Amino acid sequence: MRSQAKLRGIYTPNIVPLDSRGEIHERELRRYVDWLIAKGVHGLYPNGSTGEFTRFTAEERVRIMEIICDQVQGRVPVLAGAAEANVKETIRACETYYELGAAAVAIVAPYYYKLSPRAVYAYFKEIADHTPIDVTLYNIPMFASPIDVPTVQRLAEECPKIIGIKDSSGDLPHMIRMIQAVRPRRPDFSFLTGWDAALMPMLLIGCDGGTNASSGVVPELLVKLYDLTLAERLDEARELQYEIVTLFDAMIYTAEFPDGFRTAVRLRGFDTGAGRQPLTPDQQAELSKLAHKLQCLLAQHGFTDEPAGGCAAAGPADDDIARIVNAVVAELKQRGLG
Amino acid sequence: MRSQAKLRGIYTPNIVPLDSRGEIHERELRRYVDWLIAKGVHGLYPNGSTGEFTRFTAEERVRIMEIICDQVQGRVPVLAGAAEANVKETIRACETYYELGAAAVAIVAPYYYKLSPRAVYAYFKEIADHTPIDVTLYNIPMFASPIDVPTVQRLAEECPKIIGIKDSSGDLPHMIRMIQAVRPRRPDFSFLTGWDAALMPMLLIGCDGGTNASSGVVPELLVKLYDLTLAERLDEARELQYEIVTLFDAMIYTAEFPDGFRTAVRLRGFDTGAGRQPLTPDQQAELSKLAHKLQCLLAQHGFTDEPAGGCAAAGPADDDIARIVNAVVAELKQRGLG
Amino acid sequence: MRSQAKLRGIYTPNIVPLDSRGEIHERELRRYVDWLIAKGVHGLYPNGSTGEFTRFTAEERVRIMEIICDQVQGRVPVLAGAAEANVKETIRACETYYELGAAAVAIVAPYYYKLSPRAVYAYFKEIADHTPIDVTLYNIPMFASPIDVPTVQRLAEECPKIIGIKDSSGDLPHMIRMIQAVRPRRPDFSFLTGWDAALMPMLLIGCDGGTNASSGVVPELLVKLYDLTLAERLDEARELQYEIVTLFDAMIYTAEFPDGFRTAVRLRGFDTGAGRQPLTPDQQAELSKLAHKLQCLLAQHGFTDEPAGGCAAAGPADDDIARIVNAVVAELKQRGLG
Amino acid sequence: MRSQAKLRGIYTPNIVPLDSRGEIHERELRRYVDWLIAKGVHGLYPNGSTGEFTRFTAEERVRIMEIICDQVQGRVPVLAGAAEANVKETIRACETYYELGAAAVAIVAPYYYKLSPRAVYAYFKEIADHTPIDVTLYNIPMFASPIDVPTVQRLAEECPKIIGIKDSSGDLPHMIRMIQAVRPRRPDFSFLTGWDAALMPMLLIGCDGGTNASSGVVPELLVKLYDLTLAERLDEARELQYEIVTLFDAMIYTAEFPDGFRTAVRLRGFDTGAGRQPLTPDQQAELSKLAHKLQCLLAQHGFTDEPAGGCAAAGPADDDIARIVNAVVAELKQRGLG
Repeated sequence: MRSQAKLRGIYTPNIVPLDSRGEIHERELRRYVDWLIAKGVHGLYPNGSTGEFTRFTAEERVRIMEIICDQVQGRVPVLAGAAEANVKETIRACETYYELGAAAVAIVAPYYYKLSPRAVYAYFKEIADHTPIDVTLYNIPMFASPIDVPTVQRLAEECPKIIGIKDSSGDLPHMIRMIQAVRPRRPDFSFLTGWDAALMPMLLIGCDGGTNASSGVVPELLVKLYDLTLAERLDEARELQYEIVTLFDAMIYTAEFPDGFRTAVRLRGFDTGAGRQPLTPDQQAELSKLAHKLQCLLAQHGFTDEPAGGCAAAGPADDDIARIVNAVVAELKQRGLG
Repeated sequence: MRSQAKLRGIYTPNIVPLDSRGEIHERELRRYVDWLIAKGVHGLYPNGSTGEFTRFTAEERVRIMEIICDQVQGRVPVLAGAAEANVKETIRACETYYELGAAAVAIVAPYYYKLSPRAVYAYFKEIADHTPIDVTLYNIPMFASPIDVPTVQRLAEECPKIIGIKDSSGDLPHMIRMIQAVRPRRPDFSFLTGWDAALMPMLLIGCDGGTNASSGVVPELLVKLYDLTLAERLDEARELQYEIVTLFDAMIYTAEFPDGFRTAVRLRGFDTGAGRQPLTPDQQAELSKLAHKLQCLLAQHGFTDEPAGGCAAAGPADDDIARIVNAVVAELKQRGLG
Repeated sequence: MRSQAKLRGIYTPNIVPLDSRGEIHERELRRYVDWLIAKGVHGLYPNGSTGEFTRFTAEERVRIMEIICDQVQGRVPVLAGAAEANVKETIRACETYYELGAAAVAIVAPYYYKLSPRAVYAYFKEIADHTPIDVTLYNIPMFASPIDVPTVQRLAEECPKIIGIKDSSGDLPHMIRMIQAVRPRRPDFSFLTGWDAALMPMLLIGCDGGTNASSGVVPELLVKLYDLTLAERLDEARELQYEIVTLFDAMIYTAEFPDGFRTAVRLRGFDTGAGRQPLTPDQQAELSKLAHKLQCLLAQHGFTDEPAGGCAAAGPADDDIARIVNAVVAELKQRGLG
Repeated sequence: MRSQAKLRGIYTPNIVPLDSRGEIHERELRRYVDWLIAKGVHGLYPNGSTGEFTRFTAEERVRIMEIICDQVQGRVPVLAGAAEANVKETIRACETYYELGAAAVAIVAPYYYKLSPRAVYAYFKEIADHTPIDVTLYNIPMFASPIDVPTVQRLAEECPKIIGIKDSSGDLPHMIRMIQAVRPRRPDFSFLTGWDAALMPMLLIGCDGGTNASSGVVPELLVKLYDLTLAERLDEARELQYEIVTLFDAMIYTAEFPDGFRTAVRLRGFDTGAGRQPLTPDQQAELSKLAHKLQCLLAQHGFTDEPAGGCAAAGPADDDIARIVNAVVAELKQRGLG
């Protein structure tokens, strides 16, 4: 499905199930895609940060897109992560994903090296001038060179092929500034937030939707939060946003990203396999504890049974989680990443 | 007026007018207080960061409070900034401000040294155990040791004298986490945001009000934004929030803090004088340019006349402002301060 | 003693002993001053960061200087910390310390608010134009507004009253850049490092000395390191520098600053009392553990007896210390403070 | 040449000349390798950060190594950058580079995602357990997950295949702490600094050498600084270190990394081509100005002629450079990157 319409709603940045050898588990990936669509997400976003695009080879990234586009069969738009080693390779990926039927691509700003705003501009301009497919900018300053407001504005004004931005900073005033700078002259431009813990207020101040890792775990809740917020049922939306913060914090801060999400997707019935980043035995044990905690959270919503042994009222495990979340949030904040 | 009720609404962290010798300009301060109350702010907050408490002597801080409490005469509650050199002096200030009739004090976490969460806890616990007056915690991680969520929770649970927190981080998920941790057991606890650029979404996710420097310049607009948001008139609120972001950015990012606010208050008709921090001739010239720009912004709302020469459509001056705002925001973000 | 000569050698930023009521313990302070001079330090530096100038009142800061100048009686130069609430108060402190016989003052850049380089320049320029006493800039970016290289250069060129800089960043290339920018036109300008863990390499690349908190604990070792380095006895100097890193890390990273130094001075035989910043019971217990560890380190150098129970080979306590040091160093590094 | 000996001396992290189509310029790369060896560098280090390993495809990285190993023919050891998308691919690269005759590989900590110390440990442990070739850790916290001291210590103790660390933090006390933690039990372990501006003091406190981008431009100077320092000719070494800071700052801070180095290598007579990261016309013009400045600096050492028009005494161009350097250094410092 080629999207002519503005990107809106909840896009799932899906993880990739791996088999016991660490290879792409095609059957589970297809089954997972079907389930996400059945649960109502508005689009898919493979090869994003949650999709661990940097841990796959260039060939594997194409293979993931082939499987997903083939399985989706146009039921929902696919926003394809297309960042490669350099501009030439990235443009080639754009062409490939265009052929495969992606609605648009999302391209993260250059990473590893921290580039200046001008170089970030030049990078996206070069791509926009040569891509056959619409491009969504992807700003994730905790991992990649930041895309600042004047750069977004300039690209939006000069490049019709650039049709939106996914911003994972979670910074409300920053989102307001971007919308102020861009929307008057590009009303078609999409603003998507990648920060699940601020989805409701982001929508209320003008965002068009989100690409939220939590929607790969509890698609029902994210879609519901989106609907409640748009319907201005604020009390219900606020309550649900709070619950999503609890779940999101547990998944994002208590394991190496995105292992918390991989673990949670397993609890929804998919054989996600182990991630490609090695873990210490300590870390593996903690992932098991996290799985128990997440199962209790999911059981509260009726998405799973309680784990064997049950979920006693907030006990030491919860305190552990809360303590770890706090420590990690504090550290990230210090780094300017939170 | 001794506040028994929960702190709510818009508190103005007022600047202090200075005379030509750099001394407290009592007459203008009294006139300014009357004006703020007439414009509808719900409370005053002297000796905060906008009030430059660190640039006055201990004796001057008391004098500022005396003038304000005498002038307010109980018409609105006064939240008194009470941080002093050490715990003993701070408790003494609490006693003084209690005698003067403050509703509560606000105490910033220890600054200069960056203290650990445990030391921040011990500092507030010692004060809370010995103060005659209610205490609001003041979290401003860009200037002082951060007060993290578990510390807020522990203090809220152990110290009935601690009745709220003013948080200037502008971080929505952080506010949600604090409210989740504290409100169930302390429904009386107040959550105030000090970040004007996020006031509307902060109120929508559960904050009780704000201590916003912009309310010292455009009290009408901040009170209106508060009212519109509580009335769930979301489209009008959003539009107003956007305008406040533009104004706030111009005041906070284009001059040394809080000179932008001091300059803007002058445009509302008060002889605010020059700040105590010396400026280079360059900086003084830029303040004049900023005054012109602010006058145009205020004139759009009918709060002032246009400056001599008028406000042509966004010209080089605007671009300058936008460029500077962006540079400063980017830098602060990098420091984890934005 | 009025210093006409360039500041050189090891200056001790002394802590202030407090009595059981938390007041300045004059007798111990005098005894401590005599001891430091007897051990060979080249100067004293009261009311610095180690001296907790922000935790004393303005009157107490003057009293500390009176006691020290009276006790020193010109035997060594006194570099007086003179930062006050604003420029006017700071200039008044300069006058007072001039009268008391200080060799020079050291003034930290404005703190709490983070000022731009131009405002930092304007602040020091204003002071330099009105002070009767020579001024040393004090750059400590982890606590105060940074003083960047062009600002140091400009102040050095325009202000003969500014005669040096104390830099606590620990950043070698930064020190090289400052020396390159200033020394050609101001060969009299002093460069002192406040970062004990880099004293030897700092001296080797051109520094004139240090104001090192460790010299308040082990003045013998810091003076010895200074002498060995100037004599180019590099192998001995390197070995001693390593030992000082171990001691410094234990004092600076395992307690709230400067409690580790306060604790260590007590082990050298002074009744230093408890600091003014409240601590939790946990933190007090950790300080006791730290005292044991420090006593072992000092005993290795023959400065104290071993603690009761002895110092078994590196056991759990040591691991604790190492773990804490590492965690704190990592966190500070993330904040750009390390 | 398979290195059995400890890594020592100056390794050049070489850039890769590109032809007019942006492809590897094999002939120039071979000529450049010969020149570097002739100028006396002790080893080569392809596919490092200066070598822009992330901007080449996996196939190109292998091709670069093939060319270099073939051209070197064992004259100096080759330390091969071997980081790939995941552990499995990285181990495969280790095997390939072993076959090609590399002395060792250097592997940067995982980047993009910011991993915890335990995950960094697990990553290197997994590689060390399966690599046929010796491994040097590569710590570059400004670009990748940091490798902290306990992690280095643990890996050094558990993994005989890990034989050294390249650290680009430029942090002297950090280097001291690593050497203290590792050298007693692994006297064979190499410590190399990647921070050219601190090479002399790093060597003086115990480093074994450096992998310095400047050595790709002025190999003569870096080798001379290494020799002077080891010979303890401190005054000459200091003077040379200062000159290298000036040159290094100009190359690293006034263009997108590593374009300043690419530009400077061209001035030594190699057709380096344009980098793969697109630049704006502004940035290209600035690179031309930088080339003029660098030519003047190189001409001072007799490495090139002066540019057409000559090098007048420090003019506006120099001030520009100094201003930009300062701005960038300040910004990086704020990010904790400097």
